Amino acid sequence: MSPSLEFYDKVSEDLPIKPIAAKVNGVTGVAAIELQDIAKSDLVLKYFRAYIADLCQQFNGGHPGSAMGMAAIGVALYKYVMRFSPKNGDYFNRDRFVLSNGHACLWQYLFMHLVGVESMTTDQLKSYHSSRYDSICPGHPEIENEGVEVTTGPLGQGVANAVGLAIASKQLAATYNREGHEVVNNMTWCMIGDACLQEGVGLEAVSLAAHWKLNNLCIIYDNNNVTCDGTADVANCAEDMNAKMRATGWNVLDILDGHSNVSSIVHALLAARDSDKPTFINVRTIIGIGSGKAGTPATHGAALGLDDIVNIKKSFGLNPDEHYALPPEMYKFFEDVASRGKQLEGDWSSTLSAYEKAHPELAAEFKLRVAGRMPQDWTKFIPRKEEFPKEPTATRKSAGLVGNPLGENMKNFLVGTADLTPSCNVAYSKKVDFQNPELKTACGLDGNYSGRYLHYGIREHAMAAISNGLCAFNKGTFLPITSSFFMFYLYAAPAVRMGALQGLQQIHIATHDSIGTGEDGPTHQPIALAALYRAMPNVLYMRPCDSEEVAGAFEVAIKATETPSIISLSRQVLPQWNQSSREGFAKGAYTFVEEEQFDVTLISTGSEMVFAMQTREILKNEYNITARVVSFPVPRLFEQQSREYKQAVLKPKAGKPAVVIEAYAANGWERYADAAFSMRRFGKSLPSKDAYKYFGFEPQVMAPRIQELVDEVKRDGIEILRGDFRDLNGALGVGFEH
Amino acid sequence: MSPSLEFYDKVSEDLPIKPIAAKVNGVTGVAAIELQDIAKSDLVLKYFRAYIADLCQQFNGGHPGSAMGMAAIGVALYKYVMRFSPKNGDYFNRDRFVLSNGHACLWQYLFMHLVGVESMTTDQLKSYHSSRYDSICPGHPEIENEGVEVTTGPLGQGVANAVGLAIASKQLAATYNREGHEVVNNMTWCMIGDACLQEGVGLEAVSLAAHWKLNNLCIIYDNNNVTCDGTADVANCAEDMNAKMRATGWNVLDILDGHSNVSSIVHALLAARDSDKPTFINVRTIIGIGSGKAGTPATHGAALGLDDIVNIKKSFGLNPDEHYALPPEMYKFFEDVASRGKQLEGDWSSTLSAYEKAHPELAAEFKLRVAGRMPQDWTKFIPRKEEFPKEPTATRKSAGLVGNPLGENMKNFLVGTADLTPSCNVAYSKKVDFQNPELKTACGLDGNYSGRYLHYGIREHAMAAISNGLCAFNKGTFLPITSSFFMFYLYAAPAVRMGALQGLQQIHIATHDSIGTGEDGPTHQPIALAALYRAMPNVLYMRPCDSEEVAGAFEVAIKATETPSIISLSRQVLPQWNQSSREGFAKGAYTFVEEEQFDVTLISTGSEMVFAMQTREILKNEYNITARVVSFPVPRLFEQQSREYKQAVLKPKAGKPAVVIEAYAANGWERYADAAFSMRRFGKSLPSKDAYKYFGFEPQVMAPRIQELVDEVKRDGIEILRGDFRDLNGALGVGFEH
Repeated sequence: MSPSLEFYDKVSEDLPIKPIAAKVNGVTGVAAIELQDIAKSDLVLKYFRAYIADLCQQFNGGHPGSAMGMAAIGVALYKYVMRFSPKNGDYFNRDRFVLSNGHACLWQYLFMHLVGVESMTTDQLKSYHSSRYDSICPGHPEIENEGVEVTTGPLGQGVANAVGLAIASKQLAATYNREGHEVVNNMTWCMIGDACLQEGVGLEAVSLAAHWKLNNLCIIYDNNNVTCDGTADVANCAEDMNAKMRATGWNVLDILDGHSNVSSIVHALLAARDSDKPTFINVRTIIGIGSGKAGTPATHGAALGLDDIVNIKKSFGLNPDEHYALPPEMYKFFEDVASRGKQLEGDWSSTLSAYEKAHPELAAEFKLRVAGRMPQDWTKFIPRKEEFPKEPTATRKSAGLVGNPLGENMKNFLVGTADLTPSCNVAYSKKVDFQNPELKTACGLDGNYSGRYLHYGIREHAMAAISNGLCAFNKGTFLPITSSFFMFYLYAAPAVRMGALQGLQQIHIATHDSIGTGEDGPTHQPIALAALYRAMPNVLYMRPCDSEEVAGAFEVAIKATETPSIISLSRQVLPQWNQSSREGFAKGAYTFVEEEQFDVTLISTGSEMVFAMQTREILKNEYNITARVVSFPVPRLFEQQSREYKQAVLKPKAGKPAVVIEAYAANGWERYADAAFSMRRFGKSLPSKDAYKYFGFEPQVMAPRIQELVDEVKRDGIEILRGDFRDLNGALGVGFEH
Repeated sequence: MSPSLEFYDKVSEDLPIKPIAAKVNGVTGVAAIELQDIAKSDLVLKYFRAYIADLCQQFNGGHPGSAMGMAAIGVALYKYVMRFSPKNGDYFNRDRFVLSNGHACLWQYLFMHLVGVESMTTDQLKSYHSSRYDSICPGHPEIENEGVEVTTGPLGQGVANAVGLAIASKQLAATYNREGHEVVNNMTWCMIGDACLQEGVGLEAVSLAAHWKLNNLCIIYDNNNVTCDGTADVANCAEDMNAKMRATGWNVLDILDGHSNVSSIVHALLAARDSDKPTFINVRTIIGIGSGKAGTPATHGAALGLDDIVNIKKSFGLNPDEHYALPPEMYKFFEDVASRGKQLEGDWSSTLSAYEKAHPELAAEFKLRVAGRMPQDWTKFIPRKEEFPKEPTATRKSAGLVGNPLGENMKNFLVGTADLTPSCNVAYSKKVDFQNPELKTACGLDGNYSGRYLHYGIREHAMAAISNGLCAFNKGTFLPITSSFFMFYLYAAPAVRMGALQGLQQIHIATHDSIGTGEDGPTHQPIALAALYRAMPNVLYMRPCDSEEVAGAFEVAIKATETPSIISLSRQVLPQWNQSSREGFAKGAYTFVEEEQFDVTLISTGSEMVFAMQTREILKNEYNITARVVSFPVPRLFEQQSREYKQAVLKPKAGKPAVVIEAYAANGWERYADAAFSMRRFGKSLPSKDAYKYFGFEPQVMAPRIQELVDEVKRDGIEILRGDFRDLNGALGVGFEH
């Protein structure tokens, strides 16, 4: 079904496309468009495909097939439709492009070269799969490199990132655009392969895009029907993809000859830009077109082979003895893209100037946002310790006390939840829901696109992946906040990892974080998840023990401009500690209770601090044992401290044992402690207090165990514990010991 | 749209449903059905709902709303349609039921009581949310308890489990049923709420169910349109769920008055059982029906309140002063279910007897499968060490050498891949793909339902969750194998965790497991994932270093009948070691190279063993330092060994440092080592050898660092390393140190 372009009068002057007036049904309008230089596109496609084949042959590896198959789509996008500036990857109002099928990155790299992205030289192109450390052509596109909006690779992530980029654009436009002053109006284009909408995260994201009616988003589906295992049908033969996308709420267009018909693809892309809904363009292509193995998985992830490449070139009418051929006609074909880009930048500067004159205050704030700076001083919204409640308070509630004023006042905070608004306390007062204003009745929310509160539904993985896109729109423009139960940050983990890899700042509010969650039981009680996030590079996993430490967590998280943070919070009520301090928190670990003469150090975090402090009392009163206490909420930060500081906090040379008390697996604590009360098995459905007791977290039970340890060390020396870490509570549980 | 029942002649004698003959269009057939005792169902619904409300009030918590709303569905299922035996939860050919919206478990518990499941006494019902350790009414249903097929709770998991249960049934039926002898023909029913098909894993699973045309699967959607944040529309207003399910390949039926019309629900369930596709029944209900807060999130996850409950009872015409009222009429209504169940069991025994007579060998094998026993001796298929290639061999290839004969010969092995057949080497010769035989053309596979190879598509999460269902069908009947890149076992992690929690044995073949993966780059190179799985209870994460250790891994995995295993394998070629031994492997760690007098112990696993061994040589030849070497593939198993064994392997009292060499985060290794060459940042897109070199895994670079450590310890004593774990290579990377 070709796109409907009966009266296509919206073709813009800045694109190399000329509308051709025609009469349709007796009415004059635009019924067709003429593409500048289109006669040359055939040649371009041939040389493009041959070049890709050569690149993968060089080091006998790579992903040639999709890159070759998608060539015509690339010409349509890069030459005719996308509004961007090849010489300036930071042009704020540029169209965003995401290659969700990131393994096809050669396609993107070569187009970047052809349109004149400075750093993408032929030398660089040839570094693909090489041993060069400074290559900007890695196996999947990376955000650090010019022209790449987000790092992709794991399938489905890019689609969700694209949804985030589209939200960012809508939200900024609704916030800052004024009548006659469109400072933000870019489009987001996302390329996908067969896999991205098999993956759950992709499916979650497209539902949300339709829910939010993100008509500034277009997915282009490289439908070559080939996956590693064979045709896509070997795992997906019952689905009508187009009908499914329509039912999800997308506009759907079909291109049947997408391997060569640039013009029809351009039509579809233009229609997408003018759609009232997000658009899905299903483009039929042939993977590895030109190869003798075209249309088969053999062209997907391996070099094609010298003989095959000779045949490809011959069949294209190219010289088989020429390699990496990019004749002048190729560059000529694309040369207007860079100048058009400069023109776009100039026009935008003019728009900005007029905007500044007409709306000086708003424009000043907008420019802060463009520069990625906080729109105002955030520190004044963080309560001081004395302003917090004195009575015991769940740290998830404290997170609301700190987070809500921030959410309410900081225009760059985009706050969301995976359907746990009542539980996670992130809904700040006077929040406006991000929503298409026409959909009030349909969705029951009185929101609009300037809203900053996002209902992600029960879609934790998409929530985190979309947040990566929100963040990646422009560094520092948005600070996304997500929220859910900590256990479901395991669903979200691949996206949290992508955020860490790319240095995308976000704050993940993760509540109900342990067996303290209680009756919901073991499926909701994390055991190993903290170990994952403590081991993951560039993640600040933080587990505050009271309101003051929660304030510290927010401070750290907001200052960590290249790092996603997870603030791990209790469901249950916890004491407020005199000893807590945000300054100590910021060092990752600090002495909670110091003792000149001591027998043991107790280390704890979050919900379990109460057990450490109560055990300390019992040790003192009933066993005459002196315990100093360390709060250790962020090992990752502690590792950054000076050796002196670390030694002062842990005092390892004092020859006294250190015992960690935390209701998680002890993995990783052995760096700082000799023994642990930990969780070595899954949890249990019991009220919070009973759950802790069941697993041995009971001060009157813990104290004597510590006393035994202290006595043993006094008797045999601290070296007795070398290579003999003591697990002081509990059996291993199902599968090992019941 | 009511189900089409023009000529409903398939109603069976074993159900309390009588067909009523009628003429339609001049043809006589069954146009309606008469439900026994249906007049009493109203009363049943009222008392049911009041009881649920009382149960949540008792300890002021729980999830009453959905349980109340779904009551009529439960009557339809438990009284009229499901074929099962309340007195025997192990009846092999029982219909399987999954409550994917597991928080509504009170609904299931109460029906279990009413139909006579022995352990579900009223005493037990009242233990919901109590402090009783022996409660069988936890906050979400648990597999260990009678009548529960799978543990649910995290949304979306149950749907995927149900797909697995349906596959298991189809596969067994195709393998063992013969003309006139239907020994397996059960149905799988799965209840969902609004969330399960927002979650990606649920969406992945329903695509696969349609792809495999699992017409023995029926999803019943409790459509109350309420989630925690408000109506489901606050995050999902654009979707036409019915159209989406049809486009996915499902049969769709609608019930508009599902809160009370038991009869219409029964109709739909019967139609589902006779459908040619999986069926999705969209049942409109009212959450918390009867409550003053009915239809709102307030009834979802909290007690209703005493006043509200009084009003509920009054509006139902019940005595507001009576609590936990279950009058005799309730039990009478359901009493036939147990006797019908016994009859079913008896009939099945007869079927089995006739089957044994007609097909003695097949029946004997079938009975082994029912008993959960291996259909033959598997040990003979594991190659002996001398049978493995002598030349260097990637461990993913070795896994094929071990796994393929097993896959080929063991009828209980169900082998699958998330679209990585060529990379993971699990496709055994003569494999038959599991597929509906009518779909050969559509899916391009010459398979049938007796096939044991599953193409899951790019759906790692569903693959693992479906495998849980395959396993849960009956303990030991199937041993599912999954395969993908190790990095994508992060996508699968919530399902792997569920498998561990439930003690469901599977083997996850996880290849390309480190930076050795090379050019694909950091998005594909796991760093922290091993830490997650080593910290997770009841998971055997195993990282073999050569073919012999791979054999050891399979042996361990097959013997671990209550534990999922992950076998972590290299992409790249690795040496075959004389020193390797499967016996040593089975102890989790063992001495690879012993030295009477030694200066340092090197610990390594998998791909990095080669670095340990090469470094050992350099230390000896160039630094006159003697290193003993330990292979440490499975810390979880090592922890099970005797103290003596552990001390003999690690020799911690010898006062010599231990250095671990593994290209992962070091978290957890501090229990066994003093220093590490590890990964403290994300990876890089470089060829394998270059990647290792880039991050400091280069024997000539590592040896001098080890020498420095050895010298320091000799000089200052081993105690110098206490509380001072040494990270011997590399900076922390993006966000911390560049």
